[in-house]
Amino acid sequence: MDLLLLSNSTGDAGYLAHARDAITELAVGCKTACFVPFAGVTRDWDTYEALVRDALSPMGIQVRSLHHAADAEAARQVIDMAKLIVVGGGNTFRLLQCLRERDLLAPIAARIRSGGARYVGWSAGANLACPTICTTNDMPVANPGGLDALGLVEFQINPHYFNVVLPGFCGETRDQRLAEFTTLHPKVPVLGLPEGNWIRVRSARMDLGGAHTSRWFLGARIQDVQPGPLSLPL
Amino acid sequence: MDLLLLSNSTGDAGYLAHARDAITELAVGCKTACFVPFAGVTRDWDTYEALVRDALSPMGIQVRSLHHAADAEAARQVIDMAKLIVVGGGNTFRLLQCLRERDLLAPIAARIRSGGARYVGWSAGANLACPTICTTNDMPVANPGGLDALGLVEFQINPHYFNVVLPGFCGETRDQRLAEFTTLHPKVPVLGLPEGNWIRVRSARMDLGGAHTSRWFLGARIQDVQPGPLSLPL
Repeated sequence: MDLLLLSNSTGDAGYLAHARDAITELAVGCKTACFVPFAGVTRDWDTYEALVRDALSPMGIQVRSLHHAADAEAARQVIDMAKLIVVGGGNTFRLLQCLRERDLLAPIAARIRSGGARYVGWSAGANLACPTICTTNDMPVANPGGLDALGLVEFQINPHYFNVVLPGFCGETRDQRLAEFTTLHPKVPVLGLPEGNWIRVRSARMDLGGAHTSRWFLGARIQDVQPGPLSLPL
Repeated sequence: MDLLLLSNSTGDAGYLAHARDAITELAVGCKTACFVPFAGVTRDWDTYEALVRDALSPMGIQVRSLHHAADAEAARQVIDMAKLIVVGGGNTFRLLQCLRERDLLAPIAARIRSGGARYVGWSAGANLACPTICTTNDMPVANPGGLDALGLVEFQINPHYFNVVLPGFCGETRDQRLAEFTTLHPKVPVLGLPEGNWIRVRSARMDLGGAHTSRWFLGARIQDVQPGPLSLPL
């Protein structure tokens, strides 16, 4: 498997610009990408396709969005032929709902696992690669028909990870939310992935990319990790 | 129906202290409360019961938590006899999961709708009174088996409402998350309820309590509302 799982898409330098080298490395030899736009809610899918096309075209990658497929069967054929599947961020619940309604979860997972296609996802697209979407930060604005996802990796990702405590705010902090997850699922590791970081998976090897410290959560244990080779927490 | 739906439980003056007058007014004549602790995840249910007991006891209300019921049938009997049902905050997904697993959603809704019991809920407990939990801020750490909830009111609540934009944070703001909801559900009103505010429902009459401005979201429209009589947005 070849995966690139990014915390976020945007930064000061422009859309996906911070991950340009990482995407280029993953996508070497791929001239076309199948873009999955379904996490887009307030941004319509044509607009989203144009945004990603403009970001990937300088890297020599032509983008075609999956929403142009006439129906679920046509979409499945697109997946089965894809060499590079790119899953954009937005709302994770909506993304999972659209994929489940079209019966595309298993075909995407099979295509990636077979090595037929490589996978790039950011934010919701990174969550989708996990066993479930249980560590998304998104609002459940759509019913995804279950929380299980692609399961390409055996741990959970929390994108846009940070743990700011706002004065006067009585809701949960991010770490408190993640502690709820690890309380109910004490054997499932969660990687808190801050803005600008990503995970590169090449078969059994994993690397943490980007400039920042990331953080593993496993049960009650917390372990900071620096960019470089990444292994599951002990 | 008699409902009191609070944004939050905590404040500088102590647990539920900011809502003491509102709770006392709603609960007049009620000497015992059935407490629903299931939103508690990192706080165990015995501890949660003690916390709420200490908060409500000075108001002359004795608290007994529903988790002491031997099984789902016993819990249902408790609900059917309750005069006051108090639903605590925590994780909304876990709360809904526990109630659905025990088949308690319909009995609670029926008991409240019949006027047999009054309802107090904060945070997750306020979300539970809505048609769905689609406007919770919580992380989906448990599968609730569907997002539909009690439906005691015909609009959605977003508790702990604020719209701070954090420097360097590339995830969605609260208003962007709510815009995702109103894009997919343009006819369903959402009330953004800031810390310290609450909604009092007496049959067809609604009032907004607390010191702050709240905010209606309906489709693309936003409408600020001041404490006092509350009506659905036009």
